[in-house]
Amino acid sequence: MEKPAQNTDAQNGQVQEATKASSDGSICGYDSLHRLLSENLKPHLLQEVNRILLGMNRGKALETISLPESAKALSSGHNFDLQAFCFLADTELLREPRIIRVGLIQNSIALPTTAHFLDQKRAVFEKLRPIIDAAGAAGVNVLCLQEAWTMPFAFCTREKRWCEFAEPVDGESTRFLQDFARVYNMVIISPILERDVNHGETLWNTAVVIGNNGNIIGKHRKNHIPRVGDFNESTYYMEGNTGHPVFETAFGKIAVNICYGRHHPLNWLAFGLNGAEIVFNPSATVGELSEPMWPIEARNAAIANSYFVGSINRVGTEVFPNPFTSGDGKPEHADFGHFYGSSHFSAPDASCTPSLSRHRDGLLISDMDLNLCRQIKDKWGFRMTARYELYADLLAQYLKPDFEPQVISDPLLHKKSP
Amino acid sequence: MEKPAQNTDAQNGQVQEATKASSDGSICGYDSLHRLLSENLKPHLLQEVNRILLGMNRGKALETISLPESAKALSSGHNFDLQAFCFLADTELLREPRIIRVGLIQNSIALPTTAHFLDQKRAVFEKLRPIIDAAGAAGVNVLCLQEAWTMPFAFCTREKRWCEFAEPVDGESTRFLQDFARVYNMVIISPILERDVNHGETLWNTAVVIGNNGNIIGKHRKNHIPRVGDFNESTYYMEGNTGHPVFETAFGKIAVNICYGRHHPLNWLAFGLNGAEIVFNPSATVGELSEPMWPIEARNAAIANSYFVGSINRVGTEVFPNPFTSGDGKPEHADFGHFYGSSHFSAPDASCTPSLSRHRDGLLISDMDLNLCRQIKDKWGFRMTARYELYADLLAQYLKPDFEPQVISDPLLHKKSP
Repeated sequence: MEKPAQNTDAQNGQVQEATKASSDGSICGYDSLHRLLSENLKPHLLQEVNRILLGMNRGKALETISLPESAKALSSGHNFDLQAFCFLADTELLREPRIIRVGLIQNSIALPTTAHFLDQKRAVFEKLRPIIDAAGAAGVNVLCLQEAWTMPFAFCTREKRWCEFAEPVDGESTRFLQDFARVYNMVIISPILERDVNHGETLWNTAVVIGNNGNIIGKHRKNHIPRVGDFNESTYYMEGNTGHPVFETAFGKIAVNICYGRHHPLNWLAFGLNGAEIVFNPSATVGELSEPMWPIEARNAAIANSYFVGSINRVGTEVFPNPFTSGDGKPEHADFGHFYGSSHFSAPDASCTPSLSRHRDGLLISDMDLNLCRQIKDKWGFRMTARYELYADLLAQYLKPDFEPQVISDPLLHKKSP
Repeated sequence: MEKPAQNTDAQNGQVQEATKASSDGSICGYDSLHRLLSENLKPHLLQEVNRILLGMNRGKALETISLPESAKALSSGHNFDLQAFCFLADTELLREPRIIRVGLIQNSIALPTTAHFLDQKRAVFEKLRPIIDAAGAAGVNVLCLQEAWTMPFAFCTREKRWCEFAEPVDGESTRFLQDFARVYNMVIISPILERDVNHGETLWNTAVVIGNNGNIIGKHRKNHIPRVGDFNESTYYMEGNTGHPVFETAFGKIAVNICYGRHHPLNWLAFGLNGAEIVFNPSATVGELSEPMWPIEARNAAIANSYFVGSINRVGTEVFPNPFTSGDGKPEHADFGHFYGSSHFSAPDASCTPSLSRHRDGLLISDMDLNLCRQIKDKWGFRMTARYELYADLLAQYLKPDFEPQVISDPLLHKKSP
């Protein structure tokens, strides 16, 4: 993971609105890959590029949807990106369409990391208020926030004082969102750093699922934890113990695959086997480390498991008070790199929406007919052709310390070497 | 799957070199997505697009490699696309680099499907000869051909007479390739329709792995079989019974995930658990059905499993003597749609090569240091953080007829419905 050549304002913890090549790994001044292509390709070429990159087949283009003026006014008044699309599905004879409106929010932090922790948290609350209001005004049924949304993503520092941001499942952030859930009749997924008082102050990386009546339906704890680059997350919390729950809400069956779990096809699979129709992937990841993987993994999960995926990444560059090293021999520095946003939806038919901005806060909305999940299962048959018995056997064998891989060696291997 | 509005020359079985919008689902006259972007974006924009789409991070660009004039002469003399790249890896202190040169061949059929079967097969042999010679001249160590390369992809027809193309593992096509393997000291993977005489003339979709001394190292039979659109493949052959073998060759550990198996993350995983460093995906697939999925699944497999992937798709439109329907209520027709080529390599670090042409025969070559596989495992830790015990348990439960998914229902589900 490359680091910026120099860090400005590192000592005063100023939030950088990163648009410079030196800090986000990209060229200057473009907002998103899809906008770059839209502005620089002729329409007939763009149509073809979108056919392949976004799965927009002719006759089945992804349509934008119009939103109420109140939502647009909040977007322009509070300077957040707002985009809205619609995935299509076939009409069925024996089932009514099950169209729901789903929202994703990405945001930068609101105050410098040097501010009082309570002020930082409350400032994020206030920053999110108009974005959640816009989602409510737009009639969003299910809304998901980004990973550890109440705090800066401080895991790069290895400093333990950031643990103070951890909250119980029914803590202040949950109560803040429960009000919105009631007002807008909206399911809200709230990914936080959880403090589990009943288990000796164990910390978890948890998604709280709030029902459309403001009730807490349940929680899911992140299953897979990175130890890569500045993502020293195993320093802060442990592997989740909640399995792969699917939450049956008023607006469909949803699940949450938190951040690094997106690199594990088995994790995606498990939510599928348990019946998920939408899986959210609230994340925090930076450009030099993962940006080429970002458009791949979520779409593959949607295709392979015949469900929708909502991918969220925070935005901006977060500068911490105390510099740290990255274990790569490079100079110490005070920021993690650029969180590149680019939140988007993927569908089981291999289509996806354009992404939100790489730099700005944003609300992405999409209508989706959940009937598409079964339609794609019937069309492609991935679940029926999966031969799970082969893999249950293989994994059981693999778990044994004396596992022997199935290798067929060329008996002439050492006769003529390269 | 959309069909061309009309089929020309259907009755005489002429091979169409499809470049028209009506037959391949795309706009006219472009060769590949990457060439389209290269020719229409300014260099600094292209660099950024490639950074995201091809994983070409600054300072670690995918380099082209220069090939001998003899290989280039064969390419221009026989009109096939020839591209060559090089994946980079870090230098290690305790291991020498293990750089091998790998090749993929994509091709259209050589004679109309109305020709005598023996003539059709022999004509493909002769068509491939200069392409394999080019691979040999270029010093390719491991070469993979496309799925069922000895025949037209006749599974759309449901006619049983095409079964005549099936051969035993040591049949004519294998003998043809064994000569090249000896001459060029080259491992060759030969995907054919296999006739298993010892098991009552059972047919399989099989990859024969020929060692660099011309010996048959072994075979792998396709594990997952489509029943989608015109891919009536379960009509012709059965699910493979060879597990997930990894072939230890003079040039690394290789495996073969045949065609539809690429939609199954567990299939990719199994080759990884058995130690594969390169997995080939010889395929036959058409534009309207799968083109948006094509750049996604192979790259995801390479990322998730920390190995290289070589993806091959045949090219052109194959017209059959007897029209058939597609089970979609549309008129009968005599072709399968356009096989869009676009063969490419993916690497474990999320980078990939540009693709071969969507229309022309081609040979894609890439150098790869197999040490990259372990380097990426050490960096990202996907294998160590995978928690396979969770999934062995889940799959064992899922296989039971009375499996109960892990669902947490909102207790207020029916209090306020949407």
